[in-house]
Amino acid sequence: MAPRDRAREVPPSKVHLVANRVVILGDGQMALAMADVLAAGGAETRLWAHSSADIEALARDRRSPRLPGFVLPESVQPIAADEAALAGADVIVNAIPAQFVRAVWQRLAKHVQPRVPVVSVSKGIENETLLRPTQTIEDVLRDKPEGARSMCALSGPTIGPELARRLPATMVAASPDQPLARRVQELFTSRWLRIYTHDDIIGVELAGATKNVIAIAAGIADGLAIGFNAKSALLARGLAEIARLGAAMGARLDTFFGVAGVGDLATTCFSPEGRNRTCGERLARGERLQQIVSSTASVIEGVATAKSVHRLARRLSVDMPITDAVHDILFEDLKPARAIEELMGRSAKAERIG
Amino acid sequence: MAPRDRAREVPPSKVHLVANRVVILGDGQMALAMADVLAAGGAETRLWAHSSADIEALARDRRSPRLPGFVLPESVQPIAADEAALAGADVIVNAIPAQFVRAVWQRLAKHVQPRVPVVSVSKGIENETLLRPTQTIEDVLRDKPEGARSMCALSGPTIGPELARRLPATMVAASPDQPLARRVQELFTSRWLRIYTHDDIIGVELAGATKNVIAIAAGIADGLAIGFNAKSALLARGLAEIARLGAAMGARLDTFFGVAGVGDLATTCFSPEGRNRTCGERLARGERLQQIVSSTASVIEGVATAKSVHRLARRLSVDMPITDAVHDILFEDLKPARAIEELMGRSAKAERIG
Repeated sequence: MAPRDRAREVPPSKVHLVANRVVILGDGQMALAMADVLAAGGAETRLWAHSSADIEALARDRRSPRLPGFVLPESVQPIAADEAALAGADVIVNAIPAQFVRAVWQRLAKHVQPRVPVVSVSKGIENETLLRPTQTIEDVLRDKPEGARSMCALSGPTIGPELARRLPATMVAASPDQPLARRVQELFTSRWLRIYTHDDIIGVELAGATKNVIAIAAGIADGLAIGFNAKSALLARGLAEIARLGAAMGARLDTFFGVAGVGDLATTCFSPEGRNRTCGERLARGERLQQIVSSTASVIEGVATAKSVHRLARRLSVDMPITDAVHDILFEDLKPARAIEELMGRSAKAERIG
Repeated sequence: MAPRDRAREVPPSKVHLVANRVVILGDGQMALAMADVLAAGGAETRLWAHSSADIEALARDRRSPRLPGFVLPESVQPIAADEAALAGADVIVNAIPAQFVRAVWQRLAKHVQPRVPVVSVSKGIENETLLRPTQTIEDVLRDKPEGARSMCALSGPTIGPELARRLPATMVAASPDQPLARRVQELFTSRWLRIYTHDDIIGVELAGATKNVIAIAAGIADGLAIGFNAKSALLARGLAEIARLGAAMGARLDTFFGVAGVGDLATTCFSPEGRNRTCGERLARGERLQQIVSSTASVIEGVATAKSVHRLARRLSVDMPITDAVHDILFEDLKPARAIEELMGRSAKAERIG
């Protein structure tokens, strides 16, 4: 992550003029890592979460049990009060687990000003509605035409603990509103985080959600110790099936082959710190799902997302054998070893991607 | 790897009728692992290599210093004599390192019968001619029309030591001659190896060659300990650049997003046993290339291939920043840390895949 060109590319004064008050909704790993990035770029950064006790603890200790070792920069302001958190915000960052996005935005809606853009880093699909996070937010706010706001999905290979240690990473800022994508690029660029602009918000959000399901399968492969060759084949076949679903939902196929697609999929499948991969590994070793979920400090997004993706695949008649297997392991008591055996034994004659 | 359908899908009698005498050229990791697969399927399997001393040692000990722990099945016949090895062969498997394919086939040409198909598992591009392995073989044999033979590339995520331990794996058999692709599928299918047919021999061979160059970059990322996020971004950007080169050379883009593309790239970048990844890691830790090459029992294909890919990129005006960086680290004394810094700091505004 070369600091050399930063001053020229992103004049701090410009960032300050364009957007300087950012409120992050959420206090999970990504919320904290994004607060660190924004603060480093000089933005006035606030952090809000639904539990005021947690926010008060964060304000006092500057540390979180969800991200051991991380210290929240002094300039970041944890704010527990809904109205005060959102007052005068230029940009709202949604870092709420996908299944809680609706409840949080319903609670906050009356304090959300018209036209203020939303940047979402959530990775999942709502179970009841099968909506992506930015769609769920739009569904809650129901902005009048004169108050319409732009949405941007910010996503990429960003396992939280690494980002919090300021190891180099890349993300894409995807929006149909390209000036917003460029503004997000400027706002979130830091010495350790590089942002590409992108125009396929559907593909970027779907890739971020669905890769967590494939990562559970990759973890199962690890738990069964079937090796890197088989796990990498699973990654490739998983990528093909989530790309097929994306195409059926209006995403561009090539989004899945970019940084926010295969890049995020790779880090999620291979990083030992990934929660979804770890969940799969523990499942394969015989632990019960309930036990894994209750002993994990953060939400394992892939679990709920597997339900949504399974339903989407049926509704759109997209063949998703790996997602089906993960779904059945999680919710139908299918044995992991048997599922992998069936996946590897499928009678596939010719390889098909698109 | 479910054995359940095997008997139905691949009747052993059919395999025996269609092709039962296979000669493998080479005695490296892939040659040995393929011999194991073919022998398990009941094919009469011979193994030839340019060094008769090595072949005699293999015939005597059934072991190789290149694949510790592996024992060559009793039914596989190592044969040192050129003519005897090729006499009556129904299929010839080319498992020669890419830079030695020409010399081996020039030596053997007079014993190679017309019309006998060639299956190549070599992964590289010849330095002098920039030809793929099957093209190099065609260039040597210059078959008359009546003696023309079909070629098939067999490739996938198959780190040798894992395959030799009979861990489950997948490959694609790619040929413009689909009956040959299906015949190779039948011949090489085993309890632990699953074969898909494919029709893009250009893409499959190029993906297998170029991923070794990206794997050297991934190893450098490991050596510099920059984390899974950055390494996965490098994998994604590397995949995009080798796919761009492939498309410029007549390959299908989606071949790079399949098992033989991203699947092989992932195992090569993440398996600790990968030679190319390990080479990059040692480079990043300050070892000299010469020292790494001379202390590695097998050929590190990515080193020579980096030269060829670098030249192809220039000739075809394809932007390949990761390949350029690997080339300059290997041959121009560029410091790995500086190369990674430059790669991550490139002023890339919008992500581009195709």
